[in-house]
Amino acid sequence: MSLLVVGTVALDTVETPHGDVADALGGSATFFSYAASFFTPVRLIAVIGEDFPHAHRDLLEARGVDTSGLIVQPGGRTFRWRGKYEGDMNSAQTLETQLNVLTNFDPTLPESHAQTPYVFLANIDPNIQLKVLRQAKRKRLAVADTMNFWIETERDALLKLWREIDGVVLNDGEARLVTQEVNLVKAGRKILDMGPRFVIIKKGEHGSMFLSATDTFTLPAFPMSEVVDPTGAGDSFAGGIMGYLAATGRLDSEGFKRAMAFGTVVASFNVEDFSLRRFQRTELAEIERRFRHYQEMLAIQE
Amino acid sequence: MSLLVVGTVALDTVETPHGDVADALGGSATFFSYAASFFTPVRLIAVIGEDFPHAHRDLLEARGVDTSGLIVQPGGRTFRWRGKYEGDMNSAQTLETQLNVLTNFDPTLPESHAQTPYVFLANIDPNIQLKVLRQAKRKRLAVADTMNFWIETERDALLKLWREIDGVVLNDGEARLVTQEVNLVKAGRKILDMGPRFVIIKKGEHGSMFLSATDTFTLPAFPMSEVVDPTGAGDSFAGGIMGYLAATGRLDSEGFKRAMAFGTVVASFNVEDFSLRRFQRTELAEIERRFRHYQEMLAIQE
Repeated sequence: MSLLVVGTVALDTVETPHGDVADALGGSATFFSYAASFFTPVRLIAVIGEDFPHAHRDLLEARGVDTSGLIVQPGGRTFRWRGKYEGDMNSAQTLETQLNVLTNFDPTLPESHAQTPYVFLANIDPNIQLKVLRQAKRKRLAVADTMNFWIETERDALLKLWREIDGVVLNDGEARLVTQEVNLVKAGRKILDMGPRFVIIKKGEHGSMFLSATDTFTLPAFPMSEVVDPTGAGDSFAGGIMGYLAATGRLDSEGFKRAMAFGTVVASFNVEDFSLRRFQRTELAEIERRFRHYQEMLAIQE
Repeated sequence: MSLLVVGTVALDTVETPHGDVADALGGSATFFSYAASFFTPVRLIAVIGEDFPHAHRDLLEARGVDTSGLIVQPGGRTFRWRGKYEGDMNSAQTLETQLNVLTNFDPTLPESHAQTPYVFLANIDPNIQLKVLRQAKRKRLAVADTMNFWIETERDALLKLWREIDGVVLNDGEARLVTQEVNLVKAGRKILDMGPRFVIIKKGEHGSMFLSATDTFTLPAFPMSEVVDPTGAGDSFAGGIMGYLAATGRLDSEGFKRAMAFGTVVASFNVEDFSLRRFQRTELAEIERRFRHYQEMLAIQE
């Protein structure tokens, strides 16, 4: 079934120990869409400026991403992020953020989009996330990401959103920040108390944790000898998860675990090059091969 | 088959957010021995002072640990460590180290001990580790732990040891320190180039990684909602691994993976209370139950 995502589409300028790129295609909804598109059709809701290169839109459309909801703001300039990774590259250092067209983004879902059963609210202002959520009329599963900035500045809107959502995805630092709890299992449980039925905590190179009323499990990241650029890894992880869930409709414990494993594997491709470059050189068959490798890695035989 | 360990036996004074203990039984060889004793007979080589409580020795002997190699240095005072854990408790802050009897520890293996097929050189001066290794005459598998202090002060002795050993166990920070390589897969491979056939990198609450010429895999830690005291977690992890290997003789890829899984589970018990307290309240059947839970957690079904 199809999958709707709202989030940012950005032009990223990134520096890592392995090189740099300027004005490369990025943004939470971009990485999410591309990652999910390996599994299922994706409908993208985002805003760009008139400066957004046609080639970038073509890239998403070539993967079957419906970009009819990618609004060009007249006279607007695309959202830009500039960041740097050093050392173990586990967290980005933001050097500059130009919100530009994001400042007054106020999405209205076309009727076709409002019928989408799987909904992902990628990292963006929780007020916008909530607005999109409430326009989605036939939700089967709705999940939201966030970031420390919204936890600190829009906590009330975020908590309101979490009371209406099925699942929350966020990283370990954000889980600790929002709950004031160092232990991640306890932090996850506190988030469940805030409303969602499940929470997925991303731990970067250390993998991820899933918590619901009945399940608590952790999965490691896929071991990588070369991480070129971690930008978008978390969004790609979420894209793999939601793409798999939307494609299969498996919303039981085993389905979520498989979805997390696919998300982990998809994210491992994303970090092997800047922007979407590695994704552009892969296909579902290669993702499935690495998935089987990952599955075997974690299978503890008798 | 039986398992020999050389390392420290200490009196630990530890403070964590959950409480504190003074002069509690600790030390690398202690945690290792107790953890391994759930699987196989253990022979302990270490030095203590005249102040070492009889009750502590009794505790080890009650678990079948052969303490005939636990030498009391006349007039000596037992090695003491005082440390503190804060925040995410992933690393100890050492407040005080009193080497005492360790200063001139120069172990000679009794003939019976020299015949032990499985040998673990727990964290202690690499010159002592090497000396013990060379006295072991019928080694089937020899593995060594270390710490940052020895990497910084006894690098030559450590590298000499690593050229003669089957496997190395160390934590992520130590792997990075010794190789000057941030990426752990690359760091692990560099360590393999230094001599050992395999290396196990401990990542605390984030699990562990195994590398050999043919295998690279990561396993997560067991998700814990309550970590009371991480002291000895790494030694317990190694004890579980070596105990399982010595008990089963399974030195193939699957055997190492099962061993790491048992080590992970054994360590998860250790951190649930101070010193050996939680170990004293458990038995192999409970460890096996948690092992099966861990195995199921990581099994990604079709």
